[in-house]
Amino acid sequence: MSGYFITFEGGEGAGKSTILHRIANRLQEEGYRVLTTREPGGIPIAEKIRDVILDKEHTTMDAKTEALLYAAARRQHLVEKVIPALKEGQIVLCDRFVDSSLAYQGYARGLGMEEVYHINQFAIDGKTPDLTLLFDISPEKGIQRIHNNQHRETNRLDQENTTFHQNVYHAYQKLVEKFPNRIKRIDANFDIIEVEEMTYTTIKSFLRT
Amino acid sequence: MSGYFITFEGGEGAGKSTILHRIANRLQEEGYRVLTTREPGGIPIAEKIRDVILDKEHTTMDAKTEALLYAAARRQHLVEKVIPALKEGQIVLCDRFVDSSLAYQGYARGLGMEEVYHINQFAIDGKTPDLTLLFDISPEKGIQRIHNNQHRETNRLDQENTTFHQNVYHAYQKLVEKFPNRIKRIDANFDIIEVEEMTYTTIKSFLRT
Repeated sequence: MSGYFITFEGGEGAGKSTILHRIANRLQEEGYRVLTTREPGGIPIAEKIRDVILDKEHTTMDAKTEALLYAAARRQHLVEKVIPALKEGQIVLCDRFVDSSLAYQGYARGLGMEEVYHINQFAIDGKTPDLTLLFDISPEKGIQRIHNNQHRETNRLDQENTTFHQNVYHAYQKLVEKFPNRIKRIDANFDIIEVEEMTYTTIKSFLRT
Repeated sequence: MSGYFITFEGGEGAGKSTILHRIANRLQEEGYRVLTTREPGGIPIAEKIRDVILDKEHTTMDAKTEALLYAAARRQHLVEKVIPALKEGQIVLCDRFVDSSLAYQGYARGLGMEEVYHINQFAIDGKTPDLTLLFDISPEKGIQRIHNNQHRETNRLDQENTTFHQNVYHAYQKLVEKFPNRIKRIDANFDIIEVEEMTYTTIKSFLRT
């Protein structure tokens, strides 16, 4: 594979989705072939799985069932969309990947990061991102940004309590300690323009190595 | 938990589903409270997951996606239906469980029994059956029985080639070697009345211990 698989991670309100698309545009203008995606990424099988996860009638959904469904959707998205793009030599910028499951379901929901890691290893078959950017923002500031952003629809996770978001934050800190070579921290407490510049610089210096 | 979790396993055409219901009737007549089930077992979330697995339009379904979906459906069926019945002290007779995934997907589809075992351990949280009956029939004889049974609709698995069914057979032999205390072999090459009697005797002697 000659492409690069770059994932964007972080808590709510860190601005990662906005920055992902801006960076993609800049890289494309420079001549790079870039695929932007996020799970389930328009893959019909993965979309169907996501419908099962998000169906509001599924009030009895067990946390482990949910974790397995996320892993299944991730697998299909990876096999059908990410890997083919990497094989074509594209830069794949993916909004959230395994680290999100480790932080949200493994740690914040209490399933255990180690356990969620193992089922995701089965799902991704060793296809670890080449680079992961952690958009590091204090949970309080992240939540505040979401509330100030009237264009953004809030989702189920935005409505979790402060402890949940603090747990997500701590989980990401653990992940960056565990995988220091792969995960690079971007200080997302700054203004979004500055965060974009730091992200651009980090990705460009990665692409040069 | 005071109930008993008994699973019925084996290749196609071993007669296990028929025998499961006959045994359930006999036990109920003797005063036992018995739940007969099979995955997805009428649990709405698990049925929805099964719809994703079986949808004929999903021709790009990856084998690992499928294995994760089966594990997710299994988890929900276990949590919503099997465990509550066991807590009420019922005998749960379940047509297929984790061993089927190990034999069909782990071994016959080549994903690896060890790997499929691990994701299923996550799904079942250590809730191993108290007793598993392996309906042991030569693959050739099993297939012949299916073809002779005009009442039975054939399914996708019945149409797999002989090698596939032989692989399933070998996988079950490995499982009985690995878990000799839990899995009891029932020789299903005999006439179905005799197989039923052997099954009944095995379950009754298990219930007495």
